[in-house]
Amino acid sequence: MDTDRDTIVAPATAPGGALAVIRLTGPEAVAIADRLFRSRRPLAERAGGSCCFGTIRDGERVVDEAVAALFRAPHSYTGEETVEFSCHSSSYIIGEVLRLALQAGARMAGPGEFTRRAYLNGKLDLAQAEAVADLIASSSRAAHALAANQLRGGYSSALDGLRERLVHLAALLELELDFGEEEVDFADRSQLAALLEEIDAETERLCRSFALGNALKEGIAVAIVGAPNVGKSTLLNQLLQEERAMVSEIAGTTRDVIEERLTIDGVAFRILDTAGIRHTEDRLERMGIERTMRTIQRAQIVVRMVDATTLHGGAVPPFELALRPGQRLLTVLNKIDRLPGAAAFKAEADETAVAGALPNAAERSTDKVLPMSARSGEGVDVLRRALRAAVPTEALEEGAAVVSSARHYEALTKAREALQRAREGLAAKLPTDLLSEEVRAVAAALATITGRGALLPDELLAHIFSKFCIGK
Amino acid sequence: MDTDRDTIVAPATAPGGALAVIRLTGPEAVAIADRLFRSRRPLAERAGGSCCFGTIRDGERVVDEAVAALFRAPHSYTGEETVEFSCHSSSYIIGEVLRLALQAGARMAGPGEFTRRAYLNGKLDLAQAEAVADLIASSSRAAHALAANQLRGGYSSALDGLRERLVHLAALLELELDFGEEEVDFADRSQLAALLEEIDAETERLCRSFALGNALKEGIAVAIVGAPNVGKSTLLNQLLQEERAMVSEIAGTTRDVIEERLTIDGVAFRILDTAGIRHTEDRLERMGIERTMRTIQRAQIVVRMVDATTLHGGAVPPFELALRPGQRLLTVLNKIDRLPGAAAFKAEADETAVAGALPNAAERSTDKVLPMSARSGEGVDVLRRALRAAVPTEALEEGAAVVSSARHYEALTKAREALQRAREGLAAKLPTDLLSEEVRAVAAALATITGRGALLPDELLAHIFSKFCIGK
Repeated sequence: MDTDRDTIVAPATAPGGALAVIRLTGPEAVAIADRLFRSRRPLAERAGGSCCFGTIRDGERVVDEAVAALFRAPHSYTGEETVEFSCHSSSYIIGEVLRLALQAGARMAGPGEFTRRAYLNGKLDLAQAEAVADLIASSSRAAHALAANQLRGGYSSALDGLRERLVHLAALLELELDFGEEEVDFADRSQLAALLEEIDAETERLCRSFALGNALKEGIAVAIVGAPNVGKSTLLNQLLQEERAMVSEIAGTTRDVIEERLTIDGVAFRILDTAGIRHTEDRLERMGIERTMRTIQRAQIVVRMVDATTLHGGAVPPFELALRPGQRLLTVLNKIDRLPGAAAFKAEADETAVAGALPNAAERSTDKVLPMSARSGEGVDVLRRALRAAVPTEALEEGAAVVSSARHYEALTKAREALQRAREGLAAKLPTDLLSEEVRAVAAALATITGRGALLPDELLAHIFSKFCIGK
Repeated sequence: MDTDRDTIVAPATAPGGALAVIRLTGPEAVAIADRLFRSRRPLAERAGGSCCFGTIRDGERVVDEAVAALFRAPHSYTGEETVEFSCHSSSYIIGEVLRLALQAGARMAGPGEFTRRAYLNGKLDLAQAEAVADLIASSSRAAHALAANQLRGGYSSALDGLRERLVHLAALLELELDFGEEEVDFADRSQLAALLEEIDAETERLCRSFALGNALKEGIAVAIVGAPNVGKSTLLNQLLQEERAMVSEIAGTTRDVIEERLTIDGVAFRILDTAGIRHTEDRLERMGIERTMRTIQRAQIVVRMVDATTLHGGAVPPFELALRPGQRLLTVLNKIDRLPGAAAFKAEADETAVAGALPNAAERSTDKVLPMSARSGEGVDVLRRALRAAVPTEALEEGAAVVSSARHYEALTKAREALQRAREGLAAKLPTDLLSEEVRAVAAALATITGRGALLPDELLAHIFSKFCIGK
């Protein structure tokens, strides 16, 4: 875009609060800032990394007192000349500062345009740029670790190394074509085979990590299901009790009406409300139950609640619904406080019910049940630990690369398809020009992840940054 | 408070957005910041007015990349050592930075505690400190001008000058007491009389300005009243049409369910929804109408709507309800598009219907009516200009002092009562000790406005700053 040379302006902070930061970046940022900001010395005469107090003015009228922080290219977030005004966070003042900046020659920044500049100026690769949006959206320790890892380079540097070696081998293959008649092999076929195998292992590992990464980023979906009046809402309230304060502190958390968010030991869970399941002829009620079925389908963990008082001493019946592979079932036996001799159940509430991890555990752990009194809160903590234990975050804590971006997962899947063809071509001794093409296809798919070594179409960039907010 | 020596921390920006600013101020601010922030050089070795890039760390774990801006005492907002971290605006990250700062020895700031420090350290007087909250809340040009004027010193410097002269004369009066037997007059009685008169004129002017100032700050209350189906909602929609975009941009604007806010040429109006007025025996409907009556009572402007098609060519009947002094009535003749020969009305829609200003205009301008078709929008712009013209903001634009704070109005009223007694005492040749007491009472009342020249009780300060948000 030609417009990538414009000087752009936008508020970087949310409306409200005491302070607003308005960010101005681009070749004319300092000159434009000096037109609306008056201090002892103009910003143009100041060094980067300094901040000074002054007034924002519309002609002689003082709009606000503000602090201007100056960052000189390339030592700024965008890599360009940047001025950040800290002013009073009034909607009127913010509007006036923006108006004055536009009048002085800036234009309003589009969504994610500051980060787009950082990418275009080589301050961040594309995967890192995407991590900025994830980092800002992160509200749990696990989601934060995912984004922070990706922002630090995460798997993008590893993939870039593999891609560069691949491009080198492709170039050697193409060199052979120039010597077509002479049957020389510049590219060592066994070296190529080894590299393809290495990429296969790495991309397979990354693809496998996506189930966890995506769930951690979005929040692990937990469906609480059971017959009407089994105590689902009581359990939900018990689970949320300790977390409610934290949840309500995060203003602006978008919350689906049928979802409650809850963080257990750094991992975010989305508790999905479901209608009670029972056999019914009522059309409206059946629609509710169909929705429940769909909710169960998209849950990573299903918490099935059974009313202990309805069993009359019999065993817990098997769960009637089919689970997806990798879906985890936890059975809760509720209302144990209403049973005669309730204490006997207590001993069973041990941690062994908790074993088994989420993404690869296809086993149905119906053999163990968690006794509970959702009303008194007894047993709720065991469920809490069971939910947390179902999410294996050890790898993440150790800094292993985990893919959380659907776009990266798609690119990796495409790379693996191309990889398959390249390996088959190599085994089948495909002509050099066709083999080279397959190798190039693998490299191209990998390149779309970091944006390095490829001229990505502007539509792709526009699409990626359109998901950002203005001011990022 | 002893706690006024603590180092305090709070986010200064609202949740959401791309950037969050976390502010740390107090004697230990730099030492605490250095415990959680790592850069090329510790902040302790850096000069004020500088900012540097680094990482916020929990031990070795990187919580975020951030920019730290350093302000050295007394050259900071609070007048104390201050560090402001700009980090990514994730709820998790903000929580972590706060946790680390608390762990390193800071405590969470209370509401308005940064501004309280600025006041205690003499960076702002009390009226200026209060203006900071008003400035942040301002969403119209007029409300902004009010707050900006007060923040710049506004009437507080004028009042302080008068108060100081008063205290000087009181001291001279008290000197006379030491020479009690000798009948010397250190204090010139005519000079005292002149000063009291001057204060009388100034405080009267300020008290008078409060009606406008308060209305501008809160938004001018406009009640649209009329019979059911006269077109009140249609008119409201027409008025809001152009403003809706602006209104929805200001996230966080608290909006009463029965109020709509609208800005006309820099002045905020609150349009109050009312139930249609008609004679009825229905109890519920009568309750609605009673509420309408109360709404009319608290409106500064009443827009009365009459259905032109019900007049059958007759004159507009007089308005049945009594208006308060200073309340302004605008009569709108709606549905002119449904009249035969509607064009004839058009010529009448001139600007002469618009004259008359709000606070002092007690006249009932029922003689002029504004013809309108709320449905087509015809005449709506004339009403818009009439509403705006009813608010005299010229004085404000010229920088005149306008009181918008109820607390200041109360203090001024008290000062005027004391003033009355002092003047009477002077005229009645009250004994010097009693006269001095009355003069001191005037000075004390004035001192509560700016907080200068008086040791204000901590409860008053606590009350004032409790209305601020945390982070201000």
